[in-house]
Amino acid sequence: SAVKGFSLSCAPAGIKYKNRDDVLLITSELPFNTAAVFTENKVKAESLQLCKKNLEENSQCKAVIVNSGNANACNGEEGIKGARSITEKLSEALNVRFNEVLIASTGVIGEKFPADKIIQIIPQLIQNKDKHDEITCAKSIMTTDLFPKISSIKVNLSGTEVNIGGLAKGAGMISPNMGTMLAFIATDAKIETPLLKEILKDCVNSSFNRITVDGDTSTNDTVILMANGASEMVIRRDSDDYNSFKQAVQSVFIDLAKMIVRDGEGATKLVNIIVKDTFSVQDALIIARKIANSPLVKTALHGEDPNWGRILAAAGNTEIAFEYKKASLFIGDVTVLDKGEVPENYDEKKSNAVMKNKEFDITLSCGNGFHSANIWTSDLTKEYISINADYRS
Amino acid sequence: SAVKGFSLSCAPAGIKYKNRDDVLLITSELPFNTAAVFTENKVKAESLQLCKKNLEENSQCKAVIVNSGNANACNGEEGIKGARSITEKLSEALNVRFNEVLIASTGVIGEKFPADKIIQIIPQLIQNKDKHDEITCAKSIMTTDLFPKISSIKVNLSGTEVNIGGLAKGAGMISPNMGTMLAFIATDAKIETPLLKEILKDCVNSSFNRITVDGDTSTNDTVILMANGASEMVIRRDSDDYNSFKQAVQSVFIDLAKMIVRDGEGATKLVNIIVKDTFSVQDALIIARKIANSPLVKTALHGEDPNWGRILAAAGNTEIAFEYKKASLFIGDVTVLDKGEVPENYDEKKSNAVMKNKEFDITLSCGNGFHSANIWTSDLTKEYISINADYRS
Repeated sequence: SAVKGFSLSCAPAGIKYKNRDDVLLITSELPFNTAAVFTENKVKAESLQLCKKNLEENSQCKAVIVNSGNANACNGEEGIKGARSITEKLSEALNVRFNEVLIASTGVIGEKFPADKIIQIIPQLIQNKDKHDEITCAKSIMTTDLFPKISSIKVNLSGTEVNIGGLAKGAGMISPNMGTMLAFIATDAKIETPLLKEILKDCVNSSFNRITVDGDTSTNDTVILMANGASEMVIRRDSDDYNSFKQAVQSVFIDLAKMIVRDGEGATKLVNIIVKDTFSVQDALIIARKIANSPLVKTALHGEDPNWGRILAAAGNTEIAFEYKKASLFIGDVTVLDKGEVPENYDEKKSNAVMKNKEFDITLSCGNGFHSANIWTSDLTKEYISINADYRS
Repeated sequence: SAVKGFSLSCAPAGIKYKNRDDVLLITSELPFNTAAVFTENKVKAESLQLCKKNLEENSQCKAVIVNSGNANACNGEEGIKGARSITEKLSEALNVRFNEVLIASTGVIGEKFPADKIIQIIPQLIQNKDKHDEITCAKSIMTTDLFPKISSIKVNLSGTEVNIGGLAKGAGMISPNMGTMLAFIATDAKIETPLLKEILKDCVNSSFNRITVDGDTSTNDTVILMANGASEMVIRRDSDDYNSFKQAVQSVFIDLAKMIVRDGEGATKLVNIIVKDTFSVQDALIIARKIANSPLVKTALHGEDPNWGRILAAAGNTEIAFEYKKASLFIGDVTVLDKGEVPENYDEKKSNAVMKNKEFDITLSCGNGFHSANIWTSDLTKEYISINADYRS
């Protein structure tokens, strides 16, 4: 692993598919301070509940185990027992305390959780430590994902090299308040848990909480940020390097978040919906989310059709004051609407040309203030329907 | 027309397509009391704004003119002028006052509104009075609709026959708070405007506000309820027949609303999402809407996959308290979940068999109270993507 002191391994437990790595283990020689955020869905997976409970008791951890193929959600007592027994067996095998082990799951909801299969693979997971590269390990937590998602950065802070590295999964059930997504980000910086939690919160708000694929929120969303201090570089709020460090962490978060949208189920486009000139950031976010989740906007993105009426209709479809006569709309750099009027020299071919790109911005200025916010979204395609209607995911 | 005193006619103005009737005229020998509800979208079509203004000045009207093919929305001053000139020319031709004429439009947003084409067809519209049947007239206001939507009922109230008839359009941009939908419902009962408004509000709340296709709300939604009194049957709140009358009106509203979902863009299923046993009707509605708008639920409906985890995940994805351990779920009559547990004898083949029907119910009991609400929804299909991505609608 690029991050000092952290190790990755994976192994095939045969949860949903045979001969595919489907369990990931993250360990660290040094205990790591941990900050995490979880789904806001009222239905929370049994694995997630245990992870949350362990973290409430103890923020200094030593291992994270993650399985794909089964969400261990809506499984009641049996699901809780399953998550507990995996955590117990792994803590015994690693010779650490029960609540120093965190667990996360992703996959189908409501199917019987095969805890035994995962327990059986624990010796192999420990044996495989550092045997596979990050890409192989990131693949082991994929479900409908088409590609593994890893990101890392090195920063030089007052002469000391600090590493930040992360891996994530997610493609469907992705909405602005966390999707069916898991992300694990590690750093070898030395940083106290309260500050780590603040950094996590800010970074999640500008990354994973700013993406949408289908507006659905899952039962299993988990983002864990871990700091084991192996670089010996201490980060405090009043450090000179604090901002550089935080920006580096944020860049890894945003990188991973954008990968999730790029790999959105059936997606062919990554579009940044920027809403500007509103009374508050909250207003901008509400409007940006409404546009980003509108099936009519998302299908127009897919059709590369600069059908701006759909964007304005979505913007008007919230509780926030919105007057189209004050609004200006830009597709890439092309002005489509200038204070409610289509410019005389507007040429639809130009906005259409922008939309032929894989990635571009759509900017809506509301003419109501000085705040702004963005949401990254994908297009809505027939492939999304296939993935979600033709077989069970 | 089946409703005494009301006449329908239609004619081809060539707004979007040649040789297709695209303008509808509703007139009545007697002036009709009118109640109407309009979109809650912040962006309101210019035609709709004029219709609303005329109704504010005057609730006793004589004609309604409706065009398909152009929404006359986001058209600014020119759109307002266009709507005014059509209304003016029609009022002159019919020899009625300007504000006795109502106007509605549906079609693409932001395209130049061809008012002149509609004005030119006014003489033909007047000539065509009663020449075409209701189906032909309902077809003239279709956009992406696949079939015309009409419904009518006769009720015998204290020996007098009263007629209620309506026509509607709508297939996409349909959400629980009115979609791109227009509905015009007429009765020959004699009823004062304040009571007519109350009946309209209640009936819209149990019909057009209970449907969803894609969760998008349009700039043009309009429902107009008209009563010309031609049957001489007076309806008052304290009439013996009040409830019978209101139920008859409601049945026409629900009939038309369900037709819109059945004709939802690309839809192959009409599914009634019933949420029961909540603290309030509002709670039930919020949960039902979230389920009904979830792309993952809607694709599972299309795949006829009883993947109940998606339904529970959607139910948990609102601000309303929800505990899956108290929840029971039924697909048709099949118990899928009984207070959070899958019944031992549960056979997925049975729930799958229910889902093979064109129309069925999904009932979620939340175990939290005594209130309930329903939303009619459609499935999400590749055809929806084609309709909205492959060409401009």
